[in-house]
Amino acid sequence: MILSGTVIADSSTVISDGGVVIVGSEIEAVGTREEIFDTYPNHEHKEYDIIMPGLVGGHIHSVQSLGRGIADDTELLDWLFDYILPMEASLTEKSMEIAAKLGYLELIETGTTTAIDHLSVAHADRAFEVAGEMGLRGIFGKVLMDRRSPDGLLEDTDQALNETKRLIQKYHRSYDDRIRYAITPRFAVSCTEECLRGARELADEHDGVRIHTHASENRSEIETVEEDTGMRNIQWLDEVGLTGEDVVLAHCVWTDESEREILANTGTHVTHCPSSNMKLASGIAPIWDYHNRGINVALGNDGPPCNNTLDAFTEMRQASLLQKVDKLNPTVTPAEVIFDMATINGAKAAGFDRVGKIREGWRADILGVQTDLTRATPLHDVLSHLVFGAHGDDVAFTMVDGNVLMEDGEVTVADAKEIRRQAHNIELDLEEAREISQEVKP
Amino acid sequence: MILSGTVIADSSTVISDGGVVIVGSEIEAVGTREEIFDTYPNHEHKEYDIIMPGLVGGHIHSVQSLGRGIADDTELLDWLFDYILPMEASLTEKSMEIAAKLGYLELIETGTTTAIDHLSVAHADRAFEVAGEMGLRGIFGKVLMDRRSPDGLLEDTDQALNETKRLIQKYHRSYDDRIRYAITPRFAVSCTEECLRGARELADEHDGVRIHTHASENRSEIETVEEDTGMRNIQWLDEVGLTGEDVVLAHCVWTDESEREILANTGTHVTHCPSSNMKLASGIAPIWDYHNRGINVALGNDGPPCNNTLDAFTEMRQASLLQKVDKLNPTVTPAEVIFDMATINGAKAAGFDRVGKIREGWRADILGVQTDLTRATPLHDVLSHLVFGAHGDDVAFTMVDGNVLMEDGEVTVADAKEIRRQAHNIELDLEEAREISQEVKP
Repeated sequence: MILSGTVIADSSTVISDGGVVIVGSEIEAVGTREEIFDTYPNHEHKEYDIIMPGLVGGHIHSVQSLGRGIADDTELLDWLFDYILPMEASLTEKSMEIAAKLGYLELIETGTTTAIDHLSVAHADRAFEVAGEMGLRGIFGKVLMDRRSPDGLLEDTDQALNETKRLIQKYHRSYDDRIRYAITPRFAVSCTEECLRGARELADEHDGVRIHTHASENRSEIETVEEDTGMRNIQWLDEVGLTGEDVVLAHCVWTDESEREILANTGTHVTHCPSSNMKLASGIAPIWDYHNRGINVALGNDGPPCNNTLDAFTEMRQASLLQKVDKLNPTVTPAEVIFDMATINGAKAAGFDRVGKIREGWRADILGVQTDLTRATPLHDVLSHLVFGAHGDDVAFTMVDGNVLMEDGEVTVADAKEIRRQAHNIELDLEEAREISQEVKP
Repeated sequence: MILSGTVIADSSTVISDGGVVIVGSEIEAVGTREEIFDTYPNHEHKEYDIIMPGLVGGHIHSVQSLGRGIADDTELLDWLFDYILPMEASLTEKSMEIAAKLGYLELIETGTTTAIDHLSVAHADRAFEVAGEMGLRGIFGKVLMDRRSPDGLLEDTDQALNETKRLIQKYHRSYDDRIRYAITPRFAVSCTEECLRGARELADEHDGVRIHTHASENRSEIETVEEDTGMRNIQWLDEVGLTGEDVVLAHCVWTDESEREILANTGTHVTHCPSSNMKLASGIAPIWDYHNRGINVALGNDGPPCNNTLDAFTEMRQASLLQKVDKLNPTVTPAEVIFDMATINGAKAAGFDRVGKIREGWRADILGVQTDLTRATPLHDVLSHLVFGAHGDDVAFTMVDGNVLMEDGEVTVADAKEIRRQAHNIELDLEEAREISQEVKP
């Protein structure tokens, strides 16, 4: 297949009238329209205004999608213990499947092709299978919670790690290696030392398995860890082995100099979730500083209950705007840096080689984006428009690993209307789980 | 005409299965679907998922639309003197007309029915006529700049005020009183005392004419005013008569206690432009404090060069998220407060009675919004969804004063594709104007 249009191969390579040739799951050639059509005269051909790499959601809670907007404007502890944990605890195998379908549908529609996805404690199989069948790429993991957690989510340490091991064996490198495993402790507060060290051991035992957790999102979290361990949160994670080039830490809002040095020295990846940090009033993560220290920063939408969308274009814009106002400097986090965060940096965090740019021999994870829109008129700088002006709605074509997931604005791998109908009809009954979660609410 | 769906009459009145009857330019009845269809059996009827009041853009630069994305990631003084002022200075009668069409097209498409619109120094006639013919409501004004401004924009004080007077006589209360005049000094820095006092005199001489200016957007501005006058900016504006119930001040990011008291005591309206304040790194306006003092706060997108969109839904979300993270409190600026800012507060700022809510006897400024979208699934709270989850693209129907401007997603009062084509084809030649503007660049 040939895709033609303005090709944004990466943040520094724009071919204003270009083409991309896809053969199987790979990109065979990238060039000017003329070069491409001369060399590949008889290929199937699609034209979009912009051809760009698929976006990478560096921290996603896709299966929280049934809780979209469930607790807007709510205090953090109420948000977590009255809504989010009860919702996760009350997910059945069936509702987990629908939640996953709804989450992944939104990713496909809005151009996220790779997800770093925090599932829930139970029923992770359903999410792996839905993601695999709908054609996404990503690293996914069941959540580990072995203390300070409500019944329904709380597990024995052994049980949690054994279940993780089973899921790794079943799903890691499945679906043509699009689907991989990330061991997913919820955060240091809800995991024992044994659990965190166990996570590191499991990761070391399985080639390509990564670790993904929340870290230093809010102040009460880091205070609790300090009371537990006498250390700052990132120091503690480093102590138990949860830093390094195979580790993705979401948020990292509240870090001190020593922690930033650890992140930089260990090659730990940080995912910034600006809309979530704003909506939950967590704080402003110092990502311009991280970037300047050489820390690899990705972007993520977090979950629909704290965003309320999984549209990665929203996060690109938000990430840049939030740093600019925080630094009182409109030149920080320029479009090209943000575009990298949402593409190649995310792919590095997820551990996928040859993903995140449009390059010969790289995986064919590609979007077609339309610009015949008032908000794209006039169009002075295509890359800058994608960061500051575009929206998930503008994505008309989504390809992962050479497979077309959406074409001309229509998702081809699922029945979007039917998924929305099913999701609307789910009755979330949180009462019982909410009562139980009160017992551990601080 | 009857519009049916979930009717959000205002932030505290949701009729989950309701209808609205429009006769001429007014709302004749609001009620449940059953009541409405029983009482008005033979009216033309349109169904949308949500029926809500039109949004009010409390501070817009519609005619900067040709500069959308022209200077992203740029230092403020470069942004202003290398791009924005040269662009305004180089607008011809023809390009002004296209700029206005493009700006108002975006407002109609994304659900802004009333604009408080800062035009440019020259060719204001074209914008009044385009807005009137395209069916918008709003208060519009030619810009006053009688010092510290580049040739091409700089005017004599008398010339500036006389031209304002001519425009008031020609356009104030024109087009069925949808179009009114706002006297529009650019800001205190670029206007002499004589000009500012002249603006107040002109406003007092003409019933219903308002005053709209920028105030205390950034720190260098307030320092300059302090050097000029020995006063804080809002104190100075108060001194020369530019506070009061007929005054709209855009931004008010940097204000001290004395200035906030002046705003509250004089009934001056403040328009908050969160995306602009973030992108230009101006600062975070203390709007939760303003709200709690009883100051009327509206929302605005500012201009496409600093946003990059005129979508008011984006500003609702942004306004709430920015206060939450600034206050480190997720309960501030809840959805209902933000919804008021974007509707009734904006209408009050603009001085239009019976606008900003769906009420019997009020003007028929109404939107139809769709929710059969993944980002609206599931839909726990309709009002909250509009603030945190919806997007301008979701608006399918726009009515102002009983006239349909967009129906089923198609703008009916203009040829959208043709406007975009013309806007794309305009060559902005800024070189000469840019050279001239360097002479006054600080």
